[in-house]
Amino acid sequence: MSKNRPLILVTNDDGISAPGIRHLIDVMNGFGEVVVVAPEGAMSGQGHAITINNTLFLDRVQMDDGPQTEYKTNGTPVDCVKLALDQILDRKPDLLVSGINHGSNSSINVIYSGTMSAAVEGGLEGIPSIGFSLTTYKWDADFTAARHYVKKIAGRVLEAKETLPEPFILNVNIPYLPLDEIRGIRFGRQARARWEENYDKRINPHGREYYWLTGEFINMDKGTDTDEYALKHGYVSVVPITVDLTHYPLLERLRKWNL
Amino acid sequence: MSKNRPLILVTNDDGISAPGIRHLIDVMNGFGEVVVVAPEGAMSGQGHAITINNTLFLDRVQMDDGPQTEYKTNGTPVDCVKLALDQILDRKPDLLVSGINHGSNSSINVIYSGTMSAAVEGGLEGIPSIGFSLTTYKWDADFTAARHYVKKIAGRVLEAKETLPEPFILNVNIPYLPLDEIRGIRFGRQARARWEENYDKRINPHGREYYWLTGEFINMDKGTDTDEYALKHGYVSVVPITVDLTHYPLLERLRKWNL
Repeated sequence: MSKNRPLILVTNDDGISAPGIRHLIDVMNGFGEVVVVAPEGAMSGQGHAITINNTLFLDRVQMDDGPQTEYKTNGTPVDCVKLALDQILDRKPDLLVSGINHGSNSSINVIYSGTMSAAVEGGLEGIPSIGFSLTTYKWDADFTAARHYVKKIAGRVLEAKETLPEPFILNVNIPYLPLDEIRGIRFGRQARARWEENYDKRINPHGREYYWLTGEFINMDKGTDTDEYALKHGYVSVVPITVDLTHYPLLERLRKWNL
Repeated sequence: MSKNRPLILVTNDDGISAPGIRHLIDVMNGFGEVVVVAPEGAMSGQGHAITINNTLFLDRVQMDDGPQTEYKTNGTPVDCVKLALDQILDRKPDLLVSGINHGSNSSINVIYSGTMSAAVEGGLEGIPSIGFSLTTYKWDADFTAARHYVKKIAGRVLEAKETLPEPFILNVNIPYLPLDEIRGIRFGRQARARWEENYDKRINPHGREYYWLTGEFINMDKGTDTDEYALKHGYVSVVPITVDLTHYPLLERLRKWNL
């Protein structure tokens, strides 16, 4: 692979044939040499799952006539990143992009999201990493505005790559609006929110009960500096993500416990 | 269910028949009313995965002659928590415990761990939640020391439950040592570490290549206040865990970007 152009690793959690990743690949082809390693099928909600107790397959595929190199696997988004780094790439990528996810990964969704977990895995490996999500589940969504902001943000990160701290992980959510109705980009924090679960209980043809996960997203955060606020007001939301899960204020309190 | 004794939800990621959860249930029966909702089989490395694109089953089971109520599911550890709260329990548990995991969940392993993701899910729901792990993969490990510290820490959390902040999530790792060689409990932070992947590539009987994930854990953190340091020096490690993944120092820097 050429050492002159940036090397860009692309993955997602909706699967290699999802419109979102096809748009992302197309935009990234304008920036550098693109290698795609993506799940063969949908891996939404996989969080930071990795495949330990099962074997992984990795197949070279050609999904369209673009210049990128592509592989699909039966693994999770995090497996894709690990496989790419260990088995496919001969050098560390300059950028990892994941998405464009069909559906929001704002707020607490970052914890469940395979798209974002792939970006976190890249960050853990010292690669500047960005997860992109569009706030609609429509499979045939219009990606015009999303492409515009993907290009803008990824371009800026590539420009700045010599100066970025480690880890450098961005959670970018793009409101599903026409380009001229998006008011710009807002950097912010993860809103405090939760999912109110409500399982849909059914009986299968053999008489056995089963459940489908459904739920309602509840934003409990009144702040104006959150991702939810930005999206609601027509901005693209950018939240930088940490890999250190230590709750430092609570650690201070616990140190006073006599245990 | 009685409102007098604490209600305790127990889960894990090694599956409902793993020795670690059997010991955990046995200890918890001494504290209150115990409800177990656990995966039917191994779910290690499942991270914060949830089952969106598939159906869930939930079966009442009796695994031994203890007083606890038990259910197994085909879901992930996070699914177990969601199912318990939405479909089984008639009030919010006073405590969620997950484990005792066979193998360490210290440092960066917290991100991949199904055991810890179940605890995080409990924390998101406002339940004081603790993930317990023993630093050996031995299935027939001696849980004597682990049981001692599980009892001590869970007891202290139950005592303090009126005063705990939300979320309250602890990642407890217990070194695999005889009880009299454990030097006590240390509160600390997640060590900065990484996994160096090294896939084991093989050929199946049909001539197709496949991969097993293997890897080496590398601690890059010289600090004496980390979980890795505590474990290495014979202490039980307790790290409080946050659900806000915002990287605040990076957010400050990004706000200066002109985007």
